[in-house]
Amino acid sequence: MDYESVIKLALERGFYFPSCEVYADAQAGFWEYGPSGVGLKNKFLELWRRELVRRDAMMEIDGSQIMSESVFEASGHLENFADPIIKCTKCGATFRADRMIAETAGVNIPEGADLAEFDKIISEKGMACPKCKGSFGGAKRFNMMFGVGIGPEGVGAYLRPETCQSIFVDFPRLYKTMRGRLPLGVAQVGKSFRNEIAPRQSLLRLREFYQAEIEVFCNPSRLGDVDRFSEIQDTSIRIQTEADPVLITCGQAVDSGIIPNKFVAYYLGLLAEFYEKTGIDIRKSRFRRLGEKEKAFYADVAFDFEVETSTGWLELVACNYRSDYDLLNHAKKSGEKFEVMDGEEKVLPHVFEISMGIDRSLYTILEHSLRRDEKNDRTVLSLRPYLSPVHVGVLSLVKKDGLKEKTDEVYLQLRKKCDAFLDHSGAIGRRYRRLDEVGAPLAITVDHQTIKDNTVTLRMRDSMEQKRVKISEIDSVVATLIAYP
Amino acid sequence: MDYESVIKLALERGFYFPSCEVYADAQAGFWEYGPSGVGLKNKFLELWRRELVRRDAMMEIDGSQIMSESVFEASGHLENFADPIIKCTKCGATFRADRMIAETAGVNIPEGADLAEFDKIISEKGMACPKCKGSFGGAKRFNMMFGVGIGPEGVGAYLRPETCQSIFVDFPRLYKTMRGRLPLGVAQVGKSFRNEIAPRQSLLRLREFYQAEIEVFCNPSRLGDVDRFSEIQDTSIRIQTEADPVLITCGQAVDSGIIPNKFVAYYLGLLAEFYEKTGIDIRKSRFRRLGEKEKAFYADVAFDFEVETSTGWLELVACNYRSDYDLLNHAKKSGEKFEVMDGEEKVLPHVFEISMGIDRSLYTILEHSLRRDEKNDRTVLSLRPYLSPVHVGVLSLVKKDGLKEKTDEVYLQLRKKCDAFLDHSGAIGRRYRRLDEVGAPLAITVDHQTIKDNTVTLRMRDSMEQKRVKISEIDSVVATLIAYP
Repeated sequence: MDYESVIKLALERGFYFPSCEVYADAQAGFWEYGPSGVGLKNKFLELWRRELVRRDAMMEIDGSQIMSESVFEASGHLENFADPIIKCTKCGATFRADRMIAETAGVNIPEGADLAEFDKIISEKGMACPKCKGSFGGAKRFNMMFGVGIGPEGVGAYLRPETCQSIFVDFPRLYKTMRGRLPLGVAQVGKSFRNEIAPRQSLLRLREFYQAEIEVFCNPSRLGDVDRFSEIQDTSIRIQTEADPVLITCGQAVDSGIIPNKFVAYYLGLLAEFYEKTGIDIRKSRFRRLGEKEKAFYADVAFDFEVETSTGWLELVACNYRSDYDLLNHAKKSGEKFEVMDGEEKVLPHVFEISMGIDRSLYTILEHSLRRDEKNDRTVLSLRPYLSPVHVGVLSLVKKDGLKEKTDEVYLQLRKKCDAFLDHSGAIGRRYRRLDEVGAPLAITVDHQTIKDNTVTLRMRDSMEQKRVKISEIDSVVATLIAYP
Repeated sequence: MDYESVIKLALERGFYFPSCEVYADAQAGFWEYGPSGVGLKNKFLELWRRELVRRDAMMEIDGSQIMSESVFEASGHLENFADPIIKCTKCGATFRADRMIAETAGVNIPEGADLAEFDKIISEKGMACPKCKGSFGGAKRFNMMFGVGIGPEGVGAYLRPETCQSIFVDFPRLYKTMRGRLPLGVAQVGKSFRNEIAPRQSLLRLREFYQAEIEVFCNPSRLGDVDRFSEIQDTSIRIQTEADPVLITCGQAVDSGIIPNKFVAYYLGLLAEFYEKTGIDIRKSRFRRLGEKEKAFYADVAFDFEVETSTGWLELVACNYRSDYDLLNHAKKSGEKFEVMDGEEKVLPHVFEISMGIDRSLYTILEHSLRRDEKNDRTVLSLRPYLSPVHVGVLSLVKKDGLKEKTDEVYLQLRKKCDAFLDHSGAIGRRYRRLDEVGAPLAITVDHQTIKDNTVTLRMRDSMEQKRVKISEIDSVVATLIAYP
């Protein structure tokens, strides 16, 4: 499905919608999850915990979003986390220089390039402000962190631009008090903030967004030594380097040198298996190895996990081998010890990061799951049952003749075991359609026969098949269908 | 247990610890949840969803934390959400005026009092800066919202000081698209931010904190008409008005006029039942009805749910009948329609709010659950099993003779069903102690007999009782014990 259909669904069925939308000063890049979106997000995160965090007994933390200035001096964000911008000297409108040049002059300058390069192209091409035709001032760097002032003195601090900094800064305490051992995975889900110059496309480029990050601390001399590599060595993934993409097993990718070591390959394999279970069409995915100019400033080796959507290839996860960049810089700046013992060896751990964008992942799940069923004139959101915000709709055919009371009874029974949605009003066909659109895999209808023999109609979302089931058996039918894989 | 013992446990066992602690510019009022804290928090929230949100089929949303200026003009926060402060004219140190006067002069001036009242007492008592003995300048108001600038132009916006504003602003869309009906509960869990002048006592007064808020939209002419009132009418709660506290059922409280109507009484009853299930000692709790000067500026009738801790009475939840204050002001400011149809009646809903502080609740659960067992020389965190970060520890008596492999097998089986923690190293007694301190209700030990007959030792945290159980029966024993009530 296309982007417009997804947005329409999101707005009408409570998945997501703009923040502060009743006000004229609502700012771009801020969105809210509605009831359906919260359900989908919580279930997506439970799957992430099952497939990645708990599988390897990682630790999960939840750090504060406002962090001290020193953190971002050490991390390099104060100096490097900036976009090139140009401002119109006449009307004051501001634009991202790299994007403006790419779109109007067709020239691709990497974000990190020297500012003079941007000025040169603007002058050569005679570019002017698209709003008022005014001329541009010189390119500048705009730091994308949101600053805040703490206390009446307004001490400078920042909203974190990535969740991982808490994990790095907390590493010494976590390793010591939680009896850590290398390799040690530490995970975090939470908000990050980037003051984007041009947020766009709802969940795809937000100023306030959710990340699920995993930082695996490891001994760099043991990257070939992964206990459980056999579990993913036959998992196939698509990898794109400078050449054409190849479909290859994780084992082959290491042997042929496309992935530098088993350690990195293990996590790329796990990640591919995780996304397959989200219902994203994995055939439309690839791990793209980034070139030197594209990588983030802290990354040694980097693979982006990208998925093809109606908006183009979308980066859902950045997998960065950050080496000792983070711990070394925090150790230097803070004076704290970040080395740990790995057996007899004293080591400053290296870090491999799996940095997942939750909002983009949810968008992609919606786009890949949404379909038009023209034959039956309906729109269906074929979410995996375990990810659906509503597991089962519980409907009364009519409200009279005791059917309402019986339906309430079935609903109260089911609600303890799963996410059930009770619906008494409207034509039954329209109620089914609404459940299809919110992704409910099952609907149960109480009718007159129910009163006679304690059976209900069970309707399957995808096939529209209907069958009679005993009320006493519903619990187990539902439990089986909605179980996580 | 006392505050110091709780903090010690929190720091040593991964419940919580200061943010950015390796840096000298770490700011007060920002804390991180470690792995044990995340486990406890997630389970607490699941209980909250079960007992309050899902019970009444409320909607849950997740809104953005940065919100537009208009929102806080309408809500009154820009004008009213300020603390009185005084600044030393010599050294520049800043203090909360009300607290400084209470502590040094023993005079209680309400936060909201006229600034001249503060100046008068300071002058009368000849108060001076406790740091340098300098004199104070005049009292001022310091707005506690954190401002942020959006985009290169730095458009003014704020980190929300309470999560409920998203719920109010989103109400028209939610009501319409989700086919709302009064009464309608909308819930949200998330971070809020207050630039406290004097944050203190770890989780008890934070600058960045978690709230779980429920806003129930209702028809003010139907506050006596609560379908499910019978479910809580016999629930006993402690209420304190100006007189001594009384232990009274919700039904009696309405009949005697202590609680103004069934609608408010229903939610106070639910809330008391919820907290009883968290393991907080409910005999040390009270609903305190706030006087006119104490109430927040938006509240019509207000009850604080308070619990006695070693730090004094602690407010865990504010229950405010906000009347039409919020929707009326947002409607006026935005021009959007906030009225809805309730049957045939057009109504601007009133709001009853259950605003829960998550961090303080977790602190109180820890304090009330922690105990010293002097007889056995151990510290025990007697969390309710369903709230424990670790449900079951899985230990090998020794690593040799195939016991390690067998233990791993038991662990892998259990991990799919619950939060299991594998531990091979250290003396068995010390491993049990550590599990006691993290609140694990069960420990399973694999020993030589296990190899012979497939039984393990099951140890109960609270009684320290040990018994042999077949491995095939562990799953059901654990599942029964950790089930939510």
